Amino acid sequence: MLERTYIEDVTPDDDGEDTTIAGHVHELRDLGGILFVIVRDATGRLQVVAKEDDTPDLFETAEGLSSEDVVQVTGTLEASDQAPGGVELAPTELTVVSEATDVPSIEISKDVDADLSTRLDERHLDVRKPSTKAVFSLRSKAMGAMTDWFYDNRFEEVDTPELSTAGAEGGADLFPVVYYDKEAYLSQSPQLYKQILVASGVDRLFEVGHAFRAEDFGTSRHVSEIAMFDVELGYVEDHHDVMDVQEESLRHTIRHVVEHAQRELDELGSDLSVPEADFPRITFEEAREILADEYDHVPEDDNDLDTKGERLLGEYFEEQGHPAVFVVGYPDEKFYYRQDVDGDDVASRKFDLLYRGQELSSGGQREHDIERLTAKMREQGVEPENFEFYLDAFRYGVPPHGGYGLGIDRLIQQLAGLDNIKEAILFPRDPDRLEP
Amino acid sequence: MLERTYIEDVTPDDDGEDTTIAGHVHELRDLGGILFVIVRDATGRLQVVAKEDDTPDLFETAEGLSSEDVVQVTGTLEASDQAPGGVELAPTELTVVSEATDVPSIEISKDVDADLSTRLDERHLDVRKPSTKAVFSLRSKAMGAMTDWFYDNRFEEVDTPELSTAGAEGGADLFPVVYYDKEAYLSQSPQLYKQILVASGVDRLFEVGHAFRAEDFGTSRHVSEIAMFDVELGYVEDHHDVMDVQEESLRHTIRHVVEHAQRELDELGSDLSVPEADFPRITFEEAREILADEYDHVPEDDNDLDTKGERLLGEYFEEQGHPAVFVVGYPDEKFYYRQDVDGDDVASRKFDLLYRGQELSSGGQREHDIERLTAKMREQGVEPENFEFYLDAFRYGVPPHGGYGLGIDRLIQQLAGLDNIKEAILFPRDPDRLEP
Repeated sequence: MLERTYIEDVTPDDDGEDTTIAGHVHELRDLGGILFVIVRDATGRLQVVAKEDDTPDLFETAEGLSSEDVVQVTGTLEASDQAPGGVELAPTELTVVSEATDVPSIEISKDVDADLSTRLDERHLDVRKPSTKAVFSLRSKAMGAMTDWFYDNRFEEVDTPELSTAGAEGGADLFPVVYYDKEAYLSQSPQLYKQILVASGVDRLFEVGHAFRAEDFGTSRHVSEIAMFDVELGYVEDHHDVMDVQEESLRHTIRHVVEHAQRELDELGSDLSVPEADFPRITFEEAREILADEYDHVPEDDNDLDTKGERLLGEYFEEQGHPAVFVVGYPDEKFYYRQDVDGDDVASRKFDLLYRGQELSSGGQREHDIERLTAKMREQGVEPENFEFYLDAFRYGVPPHGGYGLGIDRLIQQLAGLDNIKEAILFPRDPDRLEP
Repeated sequence: MLERTYIEDVTPDDDGEDTTIAGHVHELRDLGGILFVIVRDATGRLQVVAKEDDTPDLFETAEGLSSEDVVQVTGTLEASDQAPGGVELAPTELTVVSEATDVPSIEISKDVDADLSTRLDERHLDVRKPSTKAVFSLRSKAMGAMTDWFYDNRFEEVDTPELSTAGAEGGADLFPVVYYDKEAYLSQSPQLYKQILVASGVDRLFEVGHAFRAEDFGTSRHVSEIAMFDVELGYVEDHHDVMDVQEESLRHTIRHVVEHAQRELDELGSDLSVPEADFPRITFEEAREILADEYDHVPEDDNDLDTKGERLLGEYFEEQGHPAVFVVGYPDEKFYYRQDVDGDDVASRKFDLLYRGQELSSGGQREHDIERLTAKMREQGVEPENFEFYLDAFRYGVPPHGGYGLGIDRLIQQLAGLDNIKEAILFPRDPDRLEP
């Protein structure tokens, strides 16, 4: 490897030490006889101060630099109150590793608000911006922490296919694939596979994968290719066991981000705190009452909360110190949710998690009794015959189970405090965007 | 959660302690007045001994059990030389949690060799077999360990799209997708995205995802939907830096499996040892010489090693205590591999890793100079105009970089000692298989 120290490891305490860094030329400031070269690597930026009097040859090389050249710089670290981060580098060697041949079309070193569409078109430049880079460093740290939690709690990671004959939920919002001489579809959710596996004894599992929705939405909350964190576990007593897993793993993840991604949060200006208190668990009816009583808002669809409703509920609970809240018991839900508890006519064990006013995950206890399951399918106009590969698993002993699917992109959007979900995705896909 | 202890946590040292387990009824053996109920959970099996004289009611319940019922059993643990694992449970309470309504069509408790196609058709039953379950427990542990290694070594996890306008390598082996009113393709590799990101400063990255190959192969080494572990890193001096990462991360993974998945390895009869010695790094020419000299084998294609050649090389090096070997420097390689080092006419910085006689990964140092890159594209009949989204990233400073893509399914196949790659995948996809 080329010799280098990560910039995040350099502190004012290293005053007087020799070091080598490598990265892109982020910014150049010529003060006449003194040239400030801000070097940016994956972990931060460091100011290199080239002085004509001290190192004339190096100064000349530095004067020939362009933005985004890749350089390797060796020198002595000097603590300095004037330097960003309190430390700068007095260079003794400067090597140009790779030259930029073009001038970037978008501002990398200045925080100029660029149009999101332009940013996504030029994502390779946009990612060089510290505030964009911070989103994806944060994303990596959050995902590492969440995955760790599940491994530490004896969940097994599984990997199920994205190509199938039919979607978990069917319908027009599937992407068809030409699969040899057959027609296949891209997965909307690993839901049915998760249940098959729990039924078959892989009884605590999680999966990180992509899901695909051929919807034409045009909102700031939807994309066509989604990153999902899916969880399923057996031997639950009820949906509260599932919510416990969701709550604890999310708290762990946020704590890790707060403790280990403060630099990224600062870069993003995101003020994040760990939701230490128990997440409130309110019923769907209570949620609608709060909306009606406090905000005079009645969501149009009797069976759902709308975007505005979710946002208002988020505000309501955030004011009480609860950024996350579970809404439990939705009417008219899909066949796999357990619905006939206590003769309820709602899927009383189905829940959504709202975080900062946005739906982050849906889950609940599932129906594990094949008689009730097939009856519910018929009631909902779903042909059990089309789901034999799924139902087969229910003909043998099935532990009571539940799970949820969490939208990773939405989680990152909220942790990073971004307006649009596409900002949380490196190369997002929507009806108009298949490139880059 | 339903109360239960994981069976792998029960040992003969727990003699005399009360505990509760839960799982599927794996096997029933009636000795007249004594009934052995072998209960299986995700982590192992435990023998429950129901005696008519001691607990007549419980004995009656036990007599009514069927294979694959889900039960919860409380009782006292008793060390016993006769019991598998040296410990068994004297039950005081037995609850049937969920009844099997059908008799399994394949043997779960006996090691009867079933046809692979039947096993995959009935994967939900096949996964209940301890030897199959062990494959996927091992897979989870291996993937957790590999991911850990990359996080610990300051790589960032990234997530790139599987839907795009064109494949990394183009050609007939792409799956077309109806994407709204456009045509899209499923990704064959995140190769180009990885390079764009390293160019843009995400300079040590990995990605776990799916790749899709519309080939009609029919071998025991290929499937249509592949799990890939992709790696890319900047600031390399040459391809040896990339091989170092591949070697160290693989050694770490195998060590973790040997230390933490011994139960799974035993179940599979896989004899795995940690490759502590440096992996040999031989040239393509040396590989062909060994094949010719030692085995009188000359692969048909002058520019490649064939399956038989890889297997023989595997044997050759395994005999010398090296299950893994790098073959370096392939002729006629793709445009993104660095090719013109020292005027070589081969891609002298491209490598394959063979593990136990099978190609596990391909990688190398990449070309990061845009002039040489576009020249090579033209030479290979690739239109640079079709790769603008990729080439754009090379117009600004690009650190020298390299990487590789490792086939996860193949790795698991080798670690678990399986004949066919499909055994290492929960729900594999091939030209004839889209379900379950």
